[in-house]
Amino acid sequence: MTATDDVIGRIRFNEAGLVPAVIQQWDSREVLMMGWMDAEAVRRTLGEGRVTFWSRSRQEYWRKGDTSGHVQYVKGAALDCDGDTLLVTVEQVGAACHTGTRTCFDADVLEPVVADADSARLAAEMGSDL
Amino acid sequence: MTATDDVIGRIRFNEAGLVPAVIQQWDSREVLMMGWMDAEAVRRTLGEGRVTFWSRSRQEYWRKGDTSGHVQYVKGAALDCDGDTLLVTVEQVGAACHTGTRTCFDADVLEPVVADADSARLAAEMGSDL
Repeated sequence: MTATDDVIGRIRFNEAGLVPAVIQQWDSREVLMMGWMDAEAVRRTLGEGRVTFWSRSRQEYWRKGDTSGHVQYVKGAALDCDGDTLLVTVEQVGAACHTGTRTCFDADVLEPVVADADSARLAAEMGSDL
Repeated sequence: MTATDDVIGRIRFNEAGLVPAVIQQWDSREVLMMGWMDAEAVRRTLGEGRVTFWSRSRQEYWRKGDTSGHVQYVKGAALDCDGDTLLVTVEQVGAACHTGTRTCFDADVLEPVVADADSARLAAEMGSDL
């Protein structure tokens, strides 16, 4: 059994046989995108130095950059505490998003109510429950 | 219709009515964890200044920090290009992971084959296909 088989054995794939993979630029630490991998896509990603996803819409392997040139070179990887999410750090060539933006999270920035530990402390002193 | 309802209307929830939410520390940009939200958890997260998940294992809302004290204060949020992943930037109090580590990705660091644009160029010159 290879080291990669051992990793794959620790992954808790969902009922469709897939695991979500968060892709992060290794140096700027931007979250670039989230994609899905089956066991074979994980094997290729960990073994080839390039990120491969499983495309749920096209039902095929999708090695990032093969058509766009926007390759993701693998710099590191980690499995989360309960084995159901992968984090892959990469060197992203060009745009990570198929829409042409640097990350997939650039186009729809939301405006949530924000808070921090200081404002929460202040609110508590004023009797609120943030 | 509120702004939050409008956001929720843009989210493509999965067949279980959930969307994955990547949680990132706002300043260090560490990826802390990934959790799941239903529409109500998104509404609370965007409206309360604190992150709330839907716990799939316990089938209940889980406002991060209510029992552990490890609150996640919301600093920003974005929806990805196809509306099926949320990114929430937070101020994390203490450990993000229920195991006590700073992030959920600290415990199982993998050792993938790594590459970068320079090594790929070199390999190409030598006739390989990285």
